Amino acid sequence: MGVGMAANLLARGHDVTVYNRSPIKAQGLIEQGARWAARIADACPGEAVLTMLADDAAVEGVVFGEGGVLESLRDRTIHVCLSTISVALSQRLAVAHAAAGQHYVAAPVFGRPEAAAAAKLFIIAAGPSDAVEACSSLLQAMGQRIFRFGDQAYVANLVKLTGNFLIGAAIEALGEAMALVDKAGVDSSHYLELLTSTLFDAPVYKTYGHLIADQKFEPAGFAAPLGLKDIRLALDAADSLHVPMPLGNLLRDRLLALIAQGGEALDWSAIGRFSARNTGQA
Amino acid sequence: MGVGMAANLLARGHDVTVYNRSPIKAQGLIEQGARWAARIADACPGEAVLTMLADDAAVEGVVFGEGGVLESLRDRTIHVCLSTISVALSQRLAVAHAAAGQHYVAAPVFGRPEAAAAAKLFIIAAGPSDAVEACSSLLQAMGQRIFRFGDQAYVANLVKLTGNFLIGAAIEALGEAMALVDKAGVDSSHYLELLTSTLFDAPVYKTYGHLIADQKFEPAGFAAPLGLKDIRLALDAADSLHVPMPLGNLLRDRLLALIAQGGEALDWSAIGRFSARNTGQA
Amino acid sequence: MGVGMAANLLARGHDVTVYNRSPIKAQGLIEQGARWAARIADACPGEAVLTMLADDAAVEGVVFGEGGVLESLRDRTIHVCLSTISVALSQRLAVAHAAAGQHYVAAPVFGRPEAAAAAKLFIIAAGPSDAVEACSSLLQAMGQRIFRFGDQAYVANLVKLTGNFLIGAAIEALGEAMALVDKAGVDSSHYLELLTSTLFDAPVYKTYGHLIADQKFEPAGFAAPLGLKDIRLALDAADSLHVPMPLGNLLRDRLLALIAQGGEALDWSAIGRFSARNTGQA
Amino acid sequence: MGVGMAANLLARGHDVTVYNRSPIKAQGLIEQGARWAARIADACPGEAVLTMLADDAAVEGVVFGEGGVLESLRDRTIHVCLSTISVALSQRLAVAHAAAGQHYVAAPVFGRPEAAAAAKLFIIAAGPSDAVEACSSLLQAMGQRIFRFGDQAYVANLVKLTGNFLIGAAIEALGEAMALVDKAGVDSSHYLELLTSTLFDAPVYKTYGHLIADQKFEPAGFAAPLGLKDIRLALDAADSLHVPMPLGNLLRDRLLALIAQGGEALDWSAIGRFSARNTGQA
Repeated sequence: MGVGMAANLLARGHDVTVYNRSPIKAQGLIEQGARWAARIADACPGEAVLTMLADDAAVEGVVFGEGGVLESLRDRTIHVCLSTISVALSQRLAVAHAAAGQHYVAAPVFGRPEAAAAAKLFIIAAGPSDAVEACSSLLQAMGQRIFRFGDQAYVANLVKLTGNFLIGAAIEALGEAMALVDKAGVDSSHYLELLTSTLFDAPVYKTYGHLIADQKFEPAGFAAPLGLKDIRLALDAADSLHVPMPLGNLLRDRLLALIAQGGEALDWSAIGRFSARNTGQA
Repeated sequence: MGVGMAANLLARGHDVTVYNRSPIKAQGLIEQGARWAARIADACPGEAVLTMLADDAAVEGVVFGEGGVLESLRDRTIHVCLSTISVALSQRLAVAHAAAGQHYVAAPVFGRPEAAAAAKLFIIAAGPSDAVEACSSLLQAMGQRIFRFGDQAYVANLVKLTGNFLIGAAIEALGEAMALVDKAGVDSSHYLELLTSTLFDAPVYKTYGHLIADQKFEPAGFAAPLGLKDIRLALDAADSLHVPMPLGNLLRDRLLALIAQGGEALDWSAIGRFSARNTGQA
Repeated sequence: MGVGMAANLLARGHDVTVYNRSPIKAQGLIEQGARWAARIADACPGEAVLTMLADDAAVEGVVFGEGGVLESLRDRTIHVCLSTISVALSQRLAVAHAAAGQHYVAAPVFGRPEAAAAAKLFIIAAGPSDAVEACSSLLQAMGQRIFRFGDQAYVANLVKLTGNFLIGAAIEALGEAMALVDKAGVDSSHYLELLTSTLFDAPVYKTYGHLIADQKFEPAGFAAPLGLKDIRLALDAADSLHVPMPLGNLLRDRLLALIAQGGEALDWSAIGRFSARNTGQA
Repeated sequence: MGVGMAANLLARGHDVTVYNRSPIKAQGLIEQGARWAARIADACPGEAVLTMLADDAAVEGVVFGEGGVLESLRDRTIHVCLSTISVALSQRLAVAHAAAGQHYVAAPVFGRPEAAAAAKLFIIAAGPSDAVEACSSLLQAMGQRIFRFGDQAYVANLVKLTGNFLIGAAIEALGEAMALVDKAGVDSSHYLELLTSTLFDAPVYKTYGHLIADQKFEPAGFAAPLGLKDIRLALDAADSLHVPMPLGNLLRDRLLALIAQGGEALDWSAIGRFSARNTGQA
């Protein structure tokens, strides 16, 4: 994801310094005009640092580690965290950056790698109003639309997590419905055509409906362990706010079972086949 | 619903005879050129009888009762059943009409009364190919699109029931997600704006998202007992095909609890407030 | 079951006439002194008729069919229905027998065939007080203890169905717990020894715990389809009283999946292996 | 709990030094012959240190804190941890004590304060065989029976957590069943009498059945937040072993809702009233 996003920043004329554990991945960006940072600290002297990383552990390492972002960022400059991380970590980052005299903006994104490359991401931004304003042109360079969710950064992360929960819910619902009509001999493609040209005319139902109908779970667009991670994070946030989410629990169970049965490398929409499997099909 | 549908048949030049237990409801149609049938039998001498009724019991009464459709329909004419009924009753109708030398087409619809009036229904049709063909101009007069699902009539009913299940699933998912972000202080309208202008840009999420956000459950567009009826029918069909539907069970429980707590007159989307209630809100 | 129960009636000196579709099964009882009834009606001239049948359909056939119990029973004599039937059928029997000037007592039992043979059944009786009183010596001849539940016969059936639900719940709970400790390498027998010698020192946990631990699901003591039937009946009764039972739903889904996957002939406790299966074990 | 347990150690002639944040609680023990430790370190010079604390955080503080058990325990002496803690913390303690040349035994207990006072606890012990052997007389002084679960200490914690899960499952099952029969007018006490004198003749069903029937949730024998903590720990352990536990999820949701609705001070068996509440009762 990060490569496409940085390319869009360069294309809009921003001054970009890139850091990655594997320098090879930055090669293309350097050819497009980016500077190379040998260490994290070398990527921190500008007006803002953007991080796009896999999970909480990666963000913690890069931010709180020795020579990390927290130590290296200048006063009043901004850390824009684009990763899908936990509400708890986002809250911790807000406190830590504020204590260090720095700004922190959470800006998780919706969109697959192709959307990132095409500057078509949807970006959910939250944090202190001035800071969000200040990095507004950066976000606009990468996304087709920015949605602001107030001055508590963690709220952006919570909203992002519920988005993934809603996608998972649609997958589960499709999986149950398709298992049922399939047993009655209905053609899945025709069934999806009905759904997605009427009440369910939305990207999610189209994309995932066809993955389930075709059982096309490899290569994974979003692998099962990543899906499990996000559902866990949504449930953790819900737990700490005392919000029961029975459908969230069901998704977690489906993903746990999928992985336990060897589906670690599959797209998370493979949970949509469980219903069929439970009926003795497939 | 029936009034709008009959009006569209008249508007396309079809010869229409109408029957209803309450003649007053047919007044407008008669002014538009419909003939009045004093008894069910008087509505049966044409090429096809269309029935649009509330539930299994109503259809059973009208079809199997003394002087009912089964007794009154001429040989080789067609009963087009537009109601949302059980898979079991649809199978029974297919057998009974065939035994009587009549044709039976199941053609349940998606759409609220306004869609019926505007000839904008989506119609799911199944039954013997010739019979479906023969009533094609009738269906086209009432709907914006006809989806055919083969020659087993009950399949149309099953597909329709899964459609309502999928709507219920979207309501539940929205309810859980909105309860969670609401506890974090997020404005529901802004949250829905995000969802419905990105991944969930579909009629269902727009319509029901706003009903839940505004807690606008009265007057009911589709009352809780009707929702419960359809979820039960979907679960019954799934049970007889040995397909577990955990999300379907959750919906049934939500609707049972809603009604047990006095919500009989509310729109079924009121189940989307349960999550909020369970969090101590509202 | 019926053979053991009738033998106990004979042993206590009761005058017994037996009827069964397969006369061969009654051979032993006739040697013990029972009279043979060639038709149902021939088993009805005494003070009470006891029926012990597999399900609703069997009871309906024997009671409401031509030459059945309802037609054959004399005024003010009693039908004692010992089968596990639906609440709805029990209510219908109460109305029908009352209308015919007859008495109806519901008396479902807890216990396996060995308990029936040993007169060790637990019997749950309900119905008009005089009628229950009148058949008290019959019930005592077959059971180790009679529990009375008032004068509404159907209540006995409801109570019996919840008993089977509670057994199913214990199986599911054991299945989940055992799948978990099993993955950590704990010996199942030792684990059950702990549970059943402390907080869970009850017949249900002992019996079913060992069946699950040993995966001894054949021959079935109580086959999966019978378990499914009873859980369905409990859920139907709950539905009509608007009582959500999420654990009941879970049990139904487990049993549906078990049967869909070919487990029709297995003991219903085989659902206790699902958790293990979902973890990739077994 | 700790007071009763220490008293039993004294009664069997053991040499006991006690530490507690509130010295007043140790008064009675000192009168019975215990020595008072002003600091944690002062409680560590013997052959074994026993800790009985509320949760992970408390154990972490006492063990890993400055002047804590880890720093103070002598070589080859034993830490016996009797608290109900997470599998993860137990694994961490095993590693830390081993690295420090010390022994670690996990020995969580089943039983309420009265059982602790009467030396009637059931103790689940695991850890290196020599270490468990060495503290065997201590455990026997406090419990009526010791169950050993091998040399991986964390297994004892896992087993203990599943025990609480099974109790919660029985509460939920009873709650659903009692809500159903209650709606049919059945007397709860009589219903429990049936259950607990037949198939469910076990302490758990007796204790919790009566709490639910009498709605006697205060004072809490085991408060809802403690129940939630343990169910969370069981689910966490299950998650890390990829074991789905749908019944465990249901229990967590019940407890979250109970607490969200103001039930923080109630006994966790109050979740058994949810079914009734969902039916519009109570």
